Amino acid sequence: MKAEIICTGTELLLGQIINSNAQIFSTGLASLGIDLFRITTVGDNKKRIEEAIEHARKMADIIILNGGLGPTEDDQTREALLRVLNKEEEVHAPTLQKIREYGMSRNLPYLKNNDKVAYVPKDATVFVNKVGSAPGSAVVVDHQVFILTPGPPHELRPMLMNDILPWLREHYGLEDAIKSRVMKLVGIGESSAEEMVRDLVGSTNPTLAPTIKKGELHFRITAKAHTTARADAMLDDMEKRFRSKLGDYVFGTDHDTLENVVGRLLIDKRLTISCAESCTGGLLASALTDVPGSSSYMHFSCLTYSDEWKERLLKVPGDILMKRGAVSVETAQAMAKGIRAMTGSDIGIATTGIAGPDGGSLEKPVGLVYVSLDFQGNQVTKKLLLSGDRQHIKELTVKRALGLVYAILNGVEV
Amino acid sequence: MKAEIICTGTELLLGQIINSNAQIFSTGLASLGIDLFRITTVGDNKKRIEEAIEHARKMADIIILNGGLGPTEDDQTREALLRVLNKEEEVHAPTLQKIREYGMSRNLPYLKNNDKVAYVPKDATVFVNKVGSAPGSAVVVDHQVFILTPGPPHELRPMLMNDILPWLREHYGLEDAIKSRVMKLVGIGESSAEEMVRDLVGSTNPTLAPTIKKGELHFRITAKAHTTARADAMLDDMEKRFRSKLGDYVFGTDHDTLENVVGRLLIDKRLTISCAESCTGGLLASALTDVPGSSSYMHFSCLTYSDEWKERLLKVPGDILMKRGAVSVETAQAMAKGIRAMTGSDIGIATTGIAGPDGGSLEKPVGLVYVSLDFQGNQVTKKLLLSGDRQHIKELTVKRALGLVYAILNGVEV
Repeated sequence: MKAEIICTGTELLLGQIINSNAQIFSTGLASLGIDLFRITTVGDNKKRIEEAIEHARKMADIIILNGGLGPTEDDQTREALLRVLNKEEEVHAPTLQKIREYGMSRNLPYLKNNDKVAYVPKDATVFVNKVGSAPGSAVVVDHQVFILTPGPPHELRPMLMNDILPWLREHYGLEDAIKSRVMKLVGIGESSAEEMVRDLVGSTNPTLAPTIKKGELHFRITAKAHTTARADAMLDDMEKRFRSKLGDYVFGTDHDTLENVVGRLLIDKRLTISCAESCTGGLLASALTDVPGSSSYMHFSCLTYSDEWKERLLKVPGDILMKRGAVSVETAQAMAKGIRAMTGSDIGIATTGIAGPDGGSLEKPVGLVYVSLDFQGNQVTKKLLLSGDRQHIKELTVKRALGLVYAILNGVEV
Repeated sequence: MKAEIICTGTELLLGQIINSNAQIFSTGLASLGIDLFRITTVGDNKKRIEEAIEHARKMADIIILNGGLGPTEDDQTREALLRVLNKEEEVHAPTLQKIREYGMSRNLPYLKNNDKVAYVPKDATVFVNKVGSAPGSAVVVDHQVFILTPGPPHELRPMLMNDILPWLREHYGLEDAIKSRVMKLVGIGESSAEEMVRDLVGSTNPTLAPTIKKGELHFRITAKAHTTARADAMLDDMEKRFRSKLGDYVFGTDHDTLENVVGRLLIDKRLTISCAESCTGGLLASALTDVPGSSSYMHFSCLTYSDEWKERLLKVPGDILMKRGAVSVETAQAMAKGIRAMTGSDIGIATTGIAGPDGGSLEKPVGLVYVSLDFQGNQVTKKLLLSGDRQHIKELTVKRALGLVYAILNGVEV
């Protein structure tokens, strides 16, 4: 099975944005064992889109078009496809209704252009857009499959994974050739981890490959087999061997996120948590409340950015702030203790550090951060030396703080 | 002048890496006013590369090949080009010498394959690789220009900017320049904004095109002219006309971010701000502290996730929480007022809503959010109806909240 992707969007040719959709498609198609043999990017130009489709028809079994399904004049992808295939369009009633209801519920003026979004090729299989408005659709003509997909990555990704790939699998009666699983770790560095699984990294099928992702360490296991069941068994076996070496650091797999895993743990153990943040500026509390149901463990958190508020609300002793400074192990500990005393939460967690770009010194450089955790009176404090820009330092600190909560709740030594 | 880029590399088709080179090329060519009309990505397969070159020859004046110049069997781009052009290759002596000296200085065994890297098409203009080993090269055949370029982005970028673009400019005696500028808006929807600048959107040079980006609305102006100065003047003129219609909503251009613009405003006006968050979970305070120097306007913020803490710390009246609920205009207003009373900040800003996926009802659906702002006693409250997943709703709410601060500080009616 050969596939070609045609991405449309003048902004891609002007270099305004990176084409991250190409990667979403290629990863997704690879998981079905479909051979992606070409990606073509053209501008929002009907003639060029048509030409690209005609060219793709000469070689590809599956032709996927991305972008250009919106309401504006620029959006011409569906029109180009209809013209090449000499097909009519029809309205997708549920989408039209959704668009009109959306407009009415917000008292927006009725704009005929918006209706355009609800049209799909006649007799197409429609993939409803659960995140945005433009639906995806697939038509089969002369044994070739043509698929229209929305441009925004956050709309494309769930539609591809949940609807389009399953549809392709069924349409072609495909059996998975390649399967993969990501093991997600926190609290250990890449070199140390690789050292511990050196023999497994040498394996050719399944393969095992590490990547670093914003404070997390991921190992991807990829297995190739004639049947899905066999590939799954190979993944299971490798996962077992991997966990026997690094299990303490594995917080999840695939779509697990660290905040979700920590949130589930807190819910299961019926524990509450409160954050007293400084350098993370609210981002730690935000991560903990990204989890549905987080109101059961999070009742209150605060951002005490100034020394005054650290003293006033969290009762950090004034002489600690004066003598040791706001960025110190003592202040971090007092903040964690203080937020617990104030809220009665089971866990108090505090961050204080220098996120930069200014405010660093020889003694306390940009990237110096303390994370302190007080779990029912038992304190652990970590000194971090991070690098990167302000946002990156905030993000890494949040990961390390969540990793600390995860380790403590699992009784792993930190 | 029409250009096509052909990127080679099976890893791009398997989704292992994002094609960042496409953006390097497209930005670079745009700066010369060269019209990039297509980007094609194919695997490391000689036949497919040849086919892509043949296809590009039908339309393009400039055909740039990227990647596949290395020493391994996979690297076949030069061979494919030579075959299509029916040309010989020749050794580039300085590169060969460099490769051999490199090997000797490191006591590496002599590998004949490595020599392959030093070959270029006969009579080509050679672009020495100052960062890596494979040189770039350009040949002209039947008035068409063919350029070979190295794959690693850190080798490509300097070669393109310092050698290839100047060579192209000289070769064609180019003067045309394309320049673009992004106008960034908040507080207005795409359809309404487009309606207000419908006449400008119809313009062909400069062009004006909208895109939506996570709660912001961007309009890109692109101008083509014989000189950079003329293109700049065209941008200035279009910006002026654009601002005359939508200026109230424009918070910045190009690399401006909403949080930075709001932060700078707060610093300039010597105002302080405190957040009382519920549904945004700390993300609003985090955005406001993403700005270097934010400690001058942000001293304290809090996440009052439970009703109890809204009442206890922010003094939201218990009967409002009981009768109107936590997600209500009254609660939002009381939170904003409460955080100001507690902190003495000039601005108090509060968020309360239903971020989902659970907790919605017919009367109060997921996506219902109130943002309330109290600026020295003057209150504005906005009811939002957002869609998307939990994180997306949080992010959109933060943008709208920042947009509200921006509007109030600029005296724009909201």
